[in-house]
Amino acid sequence: MASSPRMEEKFAPAKRVAGQKQDVWSIVNEAAAASPVQPIVNMGQGFYGYNPPQFVLDAAKSALDRVECNQYSPTKGRPRLKKAIADAYSPFFGRKLDPESEVTITTGANEGMLSAFMGFIEPGDEVIIFEPFFDQYLSNIEMPGGTIKYVPLHPPHDGGTRTSSAANWSIDFAELEAAITAKTKMIVLNSPHNPVGKVFSKSELMRIGDLCLKHGILILSDEVYDRLYYVPFTRIAALSPELAQITLTVGSAGKNFYCTGWRVGYLIGPPQLIRYVAAAHTRICYSSVSPLQEAAAVGFEQADAHRFWDSSVREMEAKVARFCHVFDELHIPYSRPEGGYFVLANLAKVKLPDRYHFPDHVSHRPRDFRMAWFLIMELGVAAIPPSEFYTPEREKVAEDWMRFAVCKEDAVLETAKERLRGLRRYIEE
Amino acid sequence: MASSPRMEEKFAPAKRVAGQKQDVWSIVNEAAAASPVQPIVNMGQGFYGYNPPQFVLDAAKSALDRVECNQYSPTKGRPRLKKAIADAYSPFFGRKLDPESEVTITTGANEGMLSAFMGFIEPGDEVIIFEPFFDQYLSNIEMPGGTIKYVPLHPPHDGGTRTSSAANWSIDFAELEAAITAKTKMIVLNSPHNPVGKVFSKSELMRIGDLCLKHGILILSDEVYDRLYYVPFTRIAALSPELAQITLTVGSAGKNFYCTGWRVGYLIGPPQLIRYVAAAHTRICYSSVSPLQEAAAVGFEQADAHRFWDSSVREMEAKVARFCHVFDELHIPYSRPEGGYFVLANLAKVKLPDRYHFPDHVSHRPRDFRMAWFLIMELGVAAIPPSEFYTPEREKVAEDWMRFAVCKEDAVLETAKERLRGLRRYIEE
Repeated sequence: MASSPRMEEKFAPAKRVAGQKQDVWSIVNEAAAASPVQPIVNMGQGFYGYNPPQFVLDAAKSALDRVECNQYSPTKGRPRLKKAIADAYSPFFGRKLDPESEVTITTGANEGMLSAFMGFIEPGDEVIIFEPFFDQYLSNIEMPGGTIKYVPLHPPHDGGTRTSSAANWSIDFAELEAAITAKTKMIVLNSPHNPVGKVFSKSELMRIGDLCLKHGILILSDEVYDRLYYVPFTRIAALSPELAQITLTVGSAGKNFYCTGWRVGYLIGPPQLIRYVAAAHTRICYSSVSPLQEAAAVGFEQADAHRFWDSSVREMEAKVARFCHVFDELHIPYSRPEGGYFVLANLAKVKLPDRYHFPDHVSHRPRDFRMAWFLIMELGVAAIPPSEFYTPEREKVAEDWMRFAVCKEDAVLETAKERLRGLRRYIEE
Repeated sequence: MASSPRMEEKFAPAKRVAGQKQDVWSIVNEAAAASPVQPIVNMGQGFYGYNPPQFVLDAAKSALDRVECNQYSPTKGRPRLKKAIADAYSPFFGRKLDPESEVTITTGANEGMLSAFMGFIEPGDEVIIFEPFFDQYLSNIEMPGGTIKYVPLHPPHDGGTRTSSAANWSIDFAELEAAITAKTKMIVLNSPHNPVGKVFSKSELMRIGDLCLKHGILILSDEVYDRLYYVPFTRIAALSPELAQITLTVGSAGKNFYCTGWRVGYLIGPPQLIRYVAAAHTRICYSSVSPLQEAAAVGFEQADAHRFWDSSVREMEAKVARFCHVFDELHIPYSRPEGGYFVLANLAKVKLPDRYHFPDHVSHRPRDFRMAWFLIMELGVAAIPPSEFYTPEREKVAEDWMRFAVCKEDAVLETAKERLRGLRRYIEE
């Protein structure tokens, strides 16, 4: 009965989930599992290759012994975590944040951003995002019925021949202003940027902020890599009281404390915005994971005493330098990240062998997908083809680039480097 | 600038979160905090008053020491947990469940149900739910644009004068069939039922299932209390291969293992349904909390060896009996639960004092809200007024009832009983 045409129609999935093309994560993970080179060095997904700091792990274990930490937390988050975040961020924002009305906890930054879109986007509203973009933004904006307007982050014109700072990925402000219409409700910023590694400069943020104030546009600032920056880092919400009133800042305990699987995110903003993010979050997840919220609270409370933030940024900067050395050796240019833990290398010089066999789901994608496949199968190094972070119209822009996540043990980075040296014979100088 | 009328409109929240009335949980929690009787005995929200079993806590702590358990889990869940659930449930479903295609992990059962609605409901589709209903169903169905059709669970006609089984809350099948239209996409079942405590009988489920097969309606069976039943428990998906093909069964590790704050839920169903639940979940939360998934896996793997399920049901049944004794003493009738951990008592006999002062947000609600306020303020016992689980049109049906959660330490139940004995002077026999 269930197989008659009428029944199939009755049981059809909603359009929002039907007929999606295979996403980059499953393509890369499946290829990695099938590679003849094992174990693969996985520099694809941005998970850490090491554990959270011991004081945070200990706090999680302690929380597990406490009855109330194993039960529902309040929907807006555990009071201790909200206070710890308010205390940790008040200095950055230049004013005392109110933990009850200006901070709300979400199930990871991802669900936090969805909650922001669900809280403010009505069908037909437009949301501006820069391209390349973190791929989850798209479905999260479309779920409440939003329409996405893309504004390019232009790669450095000499990106294929010369290593330079990720700062050289640039905004054309005329293009940005042209994307604004009467329906524009929100703009999504991401600094430090994934996958580019750019930290938006104060002057860039001022210009973006001025446009948002002029046109009445909410700012959703994805700052999940906010403790990993190698140049001065500016928060747009901190630039002026007016910008603070229209900005939701998104953070991630998972990114901050090396535990991407803990699903503890947070949003900071003015009460009249936070209220509706929290209301949406309540309807999506009800509440977030309780014992790990408590551990994150201890993380924020004790990080300074453990000099954790300092060592975190120093260690990651060293990993970036350690890894990028192999590209210097190979004369492969890359964007030197200003923040975060991704390196975009430009592999234009690497020639894929003629008649190399690629499976259909890869051969029909831009060159970077074929390159990623080749790196996995021939060298045993997994990385992410960044054209996934582009619309089909502009995906060619990214086809020479490749995203490597360096948040891995140094020994793993050394193995990756040794394997990548195998590229030498495919490079035409 | 942000305060001009045009700006306020620009920054307005989405309708789906704007202007909601205050929910029962915040009313009860705020009243509890303000009660002169402290500490309050909180039998309101269904969180456990004690910890998960030690073998599950130990597993969580071990998982925290493992790098991969602190990082992103696969979006559909950790393989070990999917396998443990498939193994644990295969006997109930009378066939070998495939962990890869027939099980998916969600961020609590709540987000699991939202994922099911997001996976299948298009704007205009109708979803049938029984009334009273768990309040989160409403926003979760409305988020993807679904329309809700309510079918009453009729209380026992002598519920105000006589204690009887929760089985006596009954379905009028003519009413159920009348609620079905060409637009009906899904029906939500909940057994054991919150707040009624009814375990739907096999014959009731057969009749519901027949209607669903006849009309092509998906079944979303919320079985989060599936390990707490005191009469024979039937799973609708297990009734026939045809029903298995159209049913999504929802479970909760948080309810199963006494850790409602862990946010580990799961859905079991045929591959053609699970696929789209998982796709929606990926777009909502990306992945779920990793170390606590691992602990839940150990829970399912080792529960039988620890005789955990047996002791779980025996202990909860004893708590129900222990607590209900006070209503027997007071000649207050109640519905004897067949499953779960809620007791619905009928307080029709309890007379609220004339001229007692109730705040506005309570006095404008049905009598059970005033009664809940009174119990908190005068006796120091918090419970949930069940008219919250009704539409305004039918909320009077519930105004004499009160929901008490008995998943608390025995000593707490004894304190509650002692306090509730204070009702005697408000009872007119």
